[in-house]
Amino acid sequence: MSKKKQTEIAELGEFGLIDHLTKNIKIKNDSTAKGVGDDAAVLDYGNKQVVISTDLLLEGIHFDLTYTPLKHLGYKAVVVNLSDIYAMNADPKQITVSIGLSSKMSVEAVDDFYEGIYLACERYGVDLIGGDTSSSLTGFAISITAVGEGEKEDITYRSGAGVNDLICVSGDFGAAYMGLQLLEREKKIFQSNPEVQPDLASHDYLLERFLKPEARKEVVELLRKIDVKPTSMIDVSDGISSELLHICKSSGVGCRLYEEKVPIDATTAMLAEEMGINPLVAALNGGEDYELLFTIKQEDYEKFVNADSKMSIYAIGHITEESKGAYMITTAGQEVKLSAQGWKHV
Amino acid sequence: MSKKKQTEIAELGEFGLIDHLTKNIKIKNDSTAKGVGDDAAVLDYGNKQVVISTDLLLEGIHFDLTYTPLKHLGYKAVVVNLSDIYAMNADPKQITVSIGLSSKMSVEAVDDFYEGIYLACERYGVDLIGGDTSSSLTGFAISITAVGEGEKEDITYRSGAGVNDLICVSGDFGAAYMGLQLLEREKKIFQSNPEVQPDLASHDYLLERFLKPEARKEVVELLRKIDVKPTSMIDVSDGISSELLHICKSSGVGCRLYEEKVPIDATTAMLAEEMGINPLVAALNGGEDYELLFTIKQEDYEKFVNADSKMSIYAIGHITEESKGAYMITTAGQEVKLSAQGWKHV
Repeated sequence: MSKKKQTEIAELGEFGLIDHLTKNIKIKNDSTAKGVGDDAAVLDYGNKQVVISTDLLLEGIHFDLTYTPLKHLGYKAVVVNLSDIYAMNADPKQITVSIGLSSKMSVEAVDDFYEGIYLACERYGVDLIGGDTSSSLTGFAISITAVGEGEKEDITYRSGAGVNDLICVSGDFGAAYMGLQLLEREKKIFQSNPEVQPDLASHDYLLERFLKPEARKEVVELLRKIDVKPTSMIDVSDGISSELLHICKSSGVGCRLYEEKVPIDATTAMLAEEMGINPLVAALNGGEDYELLFTIKQEDYEKFVNADSKMSIYAIGHITEESKGAYMITTAGQEVKLSAQGWKHV
Repeated sequence: MSKKKQTEIAELGEFGLIDHLTKNIKIKNDSTAKGVGDDAAVLDYGNKQVVISTDLLLEGIHFDLTYTPLKHLGYKAVVVNLSDIYAMNADPKQITVSIGLSSKMSVEAVDDFYEGIYLACERYGVDLIGGDTSSSLTGFAISITAVGEGEKEDITYRSGAGVNDLICVSGDFGAAYMGLQLLEREKKIFQSNPEVQPDLASHDYLLERFLKPEARKEVVELLRKIDVKPTSMIDVSDGISSELLHICKSSGVGCRLYEEKVPIDATTAMLAEEMGINPLVAALNGGEDYELLFTIKQEDYEKFVNADSKMSIYAIGHITEESKGAYMITTAGQEVKLSAQGWKHV
């Protein structure tokens, strides 16, 4: 090999690497309405805009088969992609599924995985239209691409947040992260003493949030029903903090997030305390919640209040001018700078 | 885990597994014009049809970094996807690129890989519009999805071949396979004695066909220029034999392939003989040629003959009724049944 300088990827981090690799892209085709830099790319075919998102899931990095049922894994692999489509305020319609199969997987194991895939397709009205299958030397690999549709005027980007807009989220946060911590704890106990049965009782909600999350189709439907177009939107896969910083960067704005407003389920908080984890850190930096985070004009807020909906939408802060930075106001009234996560290279 | 029956994937094989996993799909969305079962899926947006194809490439299965330069790998990873788009008689416009990076890869190595990606994008007029990056515990993983466009009346499926149609191919076959055999041979020699320099001289063509193939954009352009719409088309990734059987199955027809007509380059034949490989087997079952195989009505053939083109298009056989089966006629006049390949689980 060459003797060129070798820079470790960890020096750049995930988002730094993406910026580095994509900074020189120049769009060549008319149909490319939006390329790299949002939850999904947007293609324009005149009367329809089409959004495309893709994810690569690798055994040992994104999932652990010692505690993840294959059916749940199939379901979740689809859902996390559909979540990106909903984050564009679009409707998912098709997916492709490519898999690399380790030699230890049987046909029945693959069937379990696809049962989850098809269950998600059924639940979200999506067609499986193609993919690729191969063997894998080194673990199960899954790549899913989701295709969605929307009207041009409905598609919502990360870049439209304006000063004084309210920052809203659907659902609660940190639960999936605590579900993962619980599974990891019980795995360690089991590994050191296989006689001990895992203690997962009373944690159904946390486990379900981690193992079988849902994409927030209902939120997008509600937005249309009450005629609210968010000024910006993103799905929360890396924690509120990271996603809010993406919105701020793309929109050229700052924000104030209120600690006391961040929705955390009681079971999340209880387990977090039991395990010596700050529940707020789980919510801000945990990830895998697959809730939607969006900004709306202040005058639109009462439409949510008046909506005849059981859905939980919470206003957790507001957008400021860029020069004011991105901060959380703690319950004690202090300002704490928000910091991003993203993966770090193992 | 459960005590269900465990069937090895090898019992089904690649195509059997795909059939097994996708046989119950029912299409739910109007925009899904064609799902699983061709080189690419086809989506219909009224005034435009959009084709989508995806591939998953895994280190140790699809590529060997000991002899594959990363720049070539990036180029090839794009090209093999574009080849599927051209096989639909459509024009590729966008790609997404997802990568799982092993910890031993430096930023400079990833840059080399993307240099190849962008070179292919430039050469084929394609936009990189998104993707996903993560770390990988177990080797480099690449997933690419290509999106193309075409007019509804131009899109060409595997299913339209009719009795007496001519079977045509672009270019020659078996060269990439022999390039791979050569690299594998030199790798073994190098591993047993690192002092020996690899003997790759005079094999540039074979190495290029394997390491840096091209998709047959020019063939699709020629077809339009001379106003020929193939009755069916497929790209040759698994060898002529396998692809021709796909066409026969999808179209409900049989075929006769003439051994003497199969185009094999002199350098392919020479190395094959040197290595004790039947050049015809390399051409029929080798794979990775990324040429196009298509069927045309007999009366269209003279348009190729008259075309002012340096491109090599060869008629290698004809379509028959299904009941006559799929056979090759050897130079000695014998009929040999064609057999498929596809991957076998390692």
